[in-house]
Amino acid sequence: MASESELIAALSAVFKRSDSNVLENVIIGIGDDGAVIAPSSHKSVLATDMAVEGVHFKREWSTLKEIGAKITAANLADIYAMGGDPKYLLVSAGLTPDFGISEITELAEGIASEAKLVGASVVGGDISKADQLVISISVFGEVENPITRSGAKVGDSVVISGLPGKSAAGLMQLKNGSVESAFISAHKKPVVNYEMSKRFRKVNSMCDVSDGLLSELNHIASASKVGIELDSNLLSQLPGFSDLKAATNEEIWDLVLAGGEDHVFVATTSAEIPEGAFVIGKVVTESGVRVSGVSKLPATGFRHF
Amino acid sequence: MASESELIAALSAVFKRSDSNVLENVIIGIGDDGAVIAPSSHKSVLATDMAVEGVHFKREWSTLKEIGAKITAANLADIYAMGGDPKYLLVSAGLTPDFGISEITELAEGIASEAKLVGASVVGGDISKADQLVISISVFGEVENPITRSGAKVGDSVVISGLPGKSAAGLMQLKNGSVESAFISAHKKPVVNYEMSKRFRKVNSMCDVSDGLLSELNHIASASKVGIELDSNLLSQLPGFSDLKAATNEEIWDLVLAGGEDHVFVATTSAEIPEGAFVIGKVVTESGVRVSGVSKLPATGFRHF
Repeated sequence: MASESELIAALSAVFKRSDSNVLENVIIGIGDDGAVIAPSSHKSVLATDMAVEGVHFKREWSTLKEIGAKITAANLADIYAMGGDPKYLLVSAGLTPDFGISEITELAEGIASEAKLVGASVVGGDISKADQLVISISVFGEVENPITRSGAKVGDSVVISGLPGKSAAGLMQLKNGSVESAFISAHKKPVVNYEMSKRFRKVNSMCDVSDGLLSELNHIASASKVGIELDSNLLSQLPGFSDLKAATNEEIWDLVLAGGEDHVFVATTSAEIPEGAFVIGKVVTESGVRVSGVSKLPATGFRHF
Repeated sequence: MASESELIAALSAVFKRSDSNVLENVIIGIGDDGAVIAPSSHKSVLATDMAVEGVHFKREWSTLKEIGAKITAANLADIYAMGGDPKYLLVSAGLTPDFGISEITELAEGIASEAKLVGASVVGGDISKADQLVISISVFGEVENPITRSGAKVGDSVVISGLPGKSAAGLMQLKNGSVESAFISAHKKPVVNYEMSKRFRKVNSMCDVSDGLLSELNHIASASKVGIELDSNLLSQLPGFSDLKAATNEEIWDLVLAGGEDHVFVATTSAEIPEGAFVIGKVVTESGVRVSGVSKLPATGFRHF
């Protein structure tokens, strides 16, 4: 096994390569007790996510690059879901004994490549040994007008950036022994529509779908003290729905309503519908979340825990 | 096992209790996709640390409260070592199947109590299941004049906030079957002199001793392109040295020079010696770190990895 200093040197080499325009605000980067960032006139937005081997990913299914990118995407989506822009990442990882220079480099490249998509950079981290691979990322971003879960208003349209359920369908296919499909790719590494989330900045409430659409909308409904009515007819018109239905058949509503990890953005708005977004329902007075045309709703969201 | 939402509710209850004056700057706290903090005119300082069961702590030796406090202390010390003040913490934890409400509450209380010592607050987090207990904390602080490892100048005095090696001595005693001593307490939960670190704000370079004094001073020496000469006579006059020597005998220099996790602060300064700090050596031209009067230096610092 490589020494800690060799592994840190390999990590630093990858992360220092990912130079972006945010780096001009990085006064002190990787290599000291902490990183130092220039002051900003914006509010800060902070989020963290942890991914554990065997719980969130399996190394027989995903490459280390995909694993690194996926956990990074989950973090970046949290910042965009608040209406913010991610800037700086801290990465801590518990590494199994088989981790050498090439493994850590691949994991770091996955993290750095996803961060680079949005102009964010890794500015620090920590590594340890562990029995299971564990990755924890914290993101520090900037936000002008935070968008919470509690701002939904009766009469709002419920809008979404794309079809949820692809990642969950991919997981189902992997469990059934398939090895390759568009859904399996979406499970290994979701393609998050970060650009569209920026068009959601005038919405009243917002989440990214990490844990399933119903679960996220329940959060919005209860935090906002409203109800939400989804229209299954509108949901079935989302691009990709018929492919998903063809591939998964009777599980379709479980996947769309309870499948997580696609990190599509769902919001409620009384302003103009964001360009490219899809209306799937409306905010109503009666509490709870209902779906017209679907009688048996999945019991809970797709939870890791 | 408790459900994820029950565990999160228990965590939130503890962290929301630890209200401090930083909370007036917390615009959105625990419970949304991210936390939002009011803008600050200061630079930001970011650091992260991960602790893994069996690597950094053992539950047969330490309570969950001690474990939570210890990993928090390591993070807070990193921010102080940069000359900053810690403000906001993100906590992610991989929890073993035995974790219920009382276990998570105890862990959270350890984290919250240590954070409260310095007026910092937990503003967000993530939990997962895991085979080993894993805790990762990220701290976001503020800094006016960052103090790096690279600012040491020839002629500087090397100053330290206290004696390192107590935690390592406690670990040695635990391994030898002891169950109680001042050193064992220092190992389970170091008492970090955060207040004194604030008197180190005019120093030229600074570290907290996480990985052993020699290891940290080697970082300062190489980053600053200088050498460091410690005086074993001055080290042996540090308060607590004779107790440590009496308890550990011939291992004394290994413990003082290579023992980590006490998070004492070591710095080099050309200004007045900070009140209460101890001079232990000087910065010289010749590269490397030497200790007068100790012929056989420990090979490396105390590393977890």
